[in-house]
Amino acid sequence: MDATALHSTKTAGKPIKCRAAVSRKAGEPLVIEEVMVAPPNSGEARIKIICTSLCYSDVTFLKLKDPPGCFPRILGHEAVGVVESIGDGVSELVEGDFVIPIFIPDCAECEDCTSKKSNLCSKFPFTVSPWMHDGSSRFSDLNGDTLYHFLFVSSFAEYTVVHVANLTKIDQSTPPNRACLLSCGVSTGVGAAWKSANVEAGSTVAIFGLGSIGLAVAEGARLCGAAKIIGIDVNPEKIEISKKFGVTDFVDSKNCGEKRVSQIVNEMTGGGADYCFECVGKASLVEEAYSCCRKGWGKTVVLGVDQPGSKLTFSSHEVLHRGKTLMGSLFGGLKPKSDIPILIQRYMDKELELDKFVTHEVGFEDINKAFDLLVVGKSLRCVIWMNK
Amino acid sequence: MDATALHSTKTAGKPIKCRAAVSRKAGEPLVIEEVMVAPPNSGEARIKIICTSLCYSDVTFLKLKDPPGCFPRILGHEAVGVVESIGDGVSELVEGDFVIPIFIPDCAECEDCTSKKSNLCSKFPFTVSPWMHDGSSRFSDLNGDTLYHFLFVSSFAEYTVVHVANLTKIDQSTPPNRACLLSCGVSTGVGAAWKSANVEAGSTVAIFGLGSIGLAVAEGARLCGAAKIIGIDVNPEKIEISKKFGVTDFVDSKNCGEKRVSQIVNEMTGGGADYCFECVGKASLVEEAYSCCRKGWGKTVVLGVDQPGSKLTFSSHEVLHRGKTLMGSLFGGLKPKSDIPILIQRYMDKELELDKFVTHEVGFEDINKAFDLLVVGKSLRCVIWMNK
Repeated sequence: MDATALHSTKTAGKPIKCRAAVSRKAGEPLVIEEVMVAPPNSGEARIKIICTSLCYSDVTFLKLKDPPGCFPRILGHEAVGVVESIGDGVSELVEGDFVIPIFIPDCAECEDCTSKKSNLCSKFPFTVSPWMHDGSSRFSDLNGDTLYHFLFVSSFAEYTVVHVANLTKIDQSTPPNRACLLSCGVSTGVGAAWKSANVEAGSTVAIFGLGSIGLAVAEGARLCGAAKIIGIDVNPEKIEISKKFGVTDFVDSKNCGEKRVSQIVNEMTGGGADYCFECVGKASLVEEAYSCCRKGWGKTVVLGVDQPGSKLTFSSHEVLHRGKTLMGSLFGGLKPKSDIPILIQRYMDKELELDKFVTHEVGFEDINKAFDLLVVGKSLRCVIWMNK
Repeated sequence: MDATALHSTKTAGKPIKCRAAVSRKAGEPLVIEEVMVAPPNSGEARIKIICTSLCYSDVTFLKLKDPPGCFPRILGHEAVGVVESIGDGVSELVEGDFVIPIFIPDCAECEDCTSKKSNLCSKFPFTVSPWMHDGSSRFSDLNGDTLYHFLFVSSFAEYTVVHVANLTKIDQSTPPNRACLLSCGVSTGVGAAWKSANVEAGSTVAIFGLGSIGLAVAEGARLCGAAKIIGIDVNPEKIEISKKFGVTDFVDSKNCGEKRVSQIVNEMTGGGADYCFECVGKASLVEEAYSCCRKGWGKTVVLGVDQPGSKLTFSSHEVLHRGKTLMGSLFGGLKPKSDIPILIQRYMDKELELDKFVTHEVGFEDINKAFDLLVVGKSLRCVIWMNK
C-alpha cells in the first residue's frame, strides 16, 4: 500500500466520517453504519485499518449484557493499520507507518515497561475500560451520541484512534492478514510457551483447550522444541486440526472412562508434564492442569479467562510438598514493542507458522459471518478486510 | 573428635545398646532410656550422633495424637554425627566420616536427583513415614518392642541408622553445633531465598512469620543482597531479634488498624514486594502474601506446613491478570549433597551467619528443657550435645 494515498494532509486535525461495525445491543449482529472519528489527542495516533481479525473476546463482550459489557461499542482488537495522523507529543510514529494495535500498553517509561521481567505497564494499567486512557471516546454516531471503545483498540472501523503505548510499528513488507493475528490470541499462546513458561527443548507439554490460543501454545511449544505436546479437548474433531500445530498426543476429555484427565496425562508422561497450560477459562481445569504437572519443576500457566469472581483452589500440602509453580500469563508475558517484532521476524523466516491459523477471510460487509463461523467452531481466525 | 575412638571394629555388624530420648506418649516429655540400635542394612550407615538441634517439627510431631503422629518414636532430625559402620553396597562413606542427616533424600541416580531443577528424589519419595525406606525399624526398646523412626533420621539417640541417600558428608573441621542447623530449618529458609525464589540484589522481600525459618529466609535474602527485608509477625518483640538477621522493616500484624497487612506492605514497597515468603503454615497468610507481591513479577514462596486438608484459594482473575508466581519450597529447594556443602563453605567464609541462630546449648539429659524453651518462644535453635 502506498502511504501517500491516505492524503492525510486533507484529514489531519479534522474528524473523519467513515464506516464502522457498531455493537448496538448484547448478542445482536453488528450494524455497519457511518460514524465520526475524532482526531487523535496528545500521545495518540489515528489509524486507517487495513484488516482486522476476530478473536473470541470480541464474541464474549458482544454477548455481555452487564458491565464490563456496554453498548453501543466498537469492538475489534486484532488489526493492522496505517498511521493517518498523530497527536501532540508523538515522536515514535509518523504518518504512513504500519502499526499493529495491542490491548496491553507498553509506555516504554514505567518501572514495568523498562524491566525485562514484566509486561504489565504501570502508567496505563490494563483494564477493560470502555474509554481511551484519558477517560474519553473518539467515536460518535451520526446523531452525535458517544460510541464506546474496546480494549483501547476498536478495530472494527475504517479509522480508529489508539494511544501510542498501544501501537507497535511493523515493517511494511509484513502481510497484514498475518501480522494482525499477533495483536492478541496467537501472540498470547505462542508467548505463554516462549516467554511465560520458557518451554525447553525436549520437554513435555499439556494444553487444556485447543481453540486458537491453545493451538498457538502448541505452535509456541513446537518452536521451543518440545518433545511431546499433549492436546486435551472435549471435541475429538480437534485431533486432526491440532496435528498441524505440533500436537503429538490427544486426550479426549469426554472419554476418559473413570480416570481423570490428570491421571491420564501423568501416565502418558511418566509422572506429569513439564509445562501445563489452561486455555479454556475454567477454574476446575486450572486445578486439573496443576495436578498433572511434574513434581519438582512442573509449571502451570493460566491463560483462560474465567467468569468474574471465580476462585482457584489448591491443596496447601500439594503446593508445599510437590515443588510446582503456578503463574498467570497476560498476552503470553510478551512485551509488545520489543517481542512482537521478533515474532514477525520469525514468521518472515518461516519458523513461526501463522498461515494455518487463518481459516477464513471476508470483506468488511460480511463481518457478522466471521462471528457466526467462530461461534460454531468453524474458524480459528477469520481475517476481515476493510476494503477488498 | 578422633574417629578412631569409635572402635567401630568392635561394634560393626552387632546391635548397639545406647541411650535415646524416646517419645512415648503424645504431648509428654521425652524419656531417656536405653535402646537397641540394629546394624545398618544395605545402603545404610549407622551414625554416632555428636549433637542435634531442635526444630519445631519435632514439637509438632510430639503433640500429634493421631497419624502421622505415632508412638513410641525417636524424634530429632537436625544433627551431626560420625559414621560408626556401613551396610552392604555403601561406597560413598567410610567409618569415621562426618555427616549430617537430611530428611529429604538425594539418591544421586533418579531423574530428579540428576536434574538441576528438582530436589524431590523419586527413588525415595519424601513422606513422614515412621519407618526406614525399606519399611522396617532399626530401633527397639529393652523389652524388644519396636520404636518408630522420624523423617528417616531420628537423631535423639546416641546412635541412629540413616540411609546413605539421607546423609551428606561434611568436612571434619566444621563446628558440629553449627553444621547441625543445616539439616533442616536454617537451610529451608536460606534455600528458599537463594534457590527457590532466587532473590536478586536490590530487591524487596516480605516474610510472614519470624520464627527460625522466617529469620533464615531473612538471612538468605540478606546474603542475596536484598535492599528491603520486611518482617511480619504478631509479636513485636521480634523487631529487635529480627534486625540481627537483616530485617530492615517490621510490620506488627496485630496492630494494623483497619488495614490489611498486604495493604501496608504494598504501601511500603510502592506496589508490592518482589518476593514474599509464608513461614507460618496458615493458608490465609499464603493468600495475604500473594496479595502483597508485586504485579508483573512477584513470587510467593510457601514454606509453612498447614493442617492436613487445608486449602489455598486465589482469585482466578488476579492469577491471570497480575502475572504473579506461586511456588512451594520443600527444604528451600536445596539439593542436599550438592548445596549443603556450599552453605557450609559460606559459613566457614563468614558470609552465612549461623551463630546467631543458636540461642541455647544443653546436654542430652536436658533435652526436655530444649523443648520447653522452643515452645514458649525463648529459643531459636537449642543445640543438644550427646556427650558434653
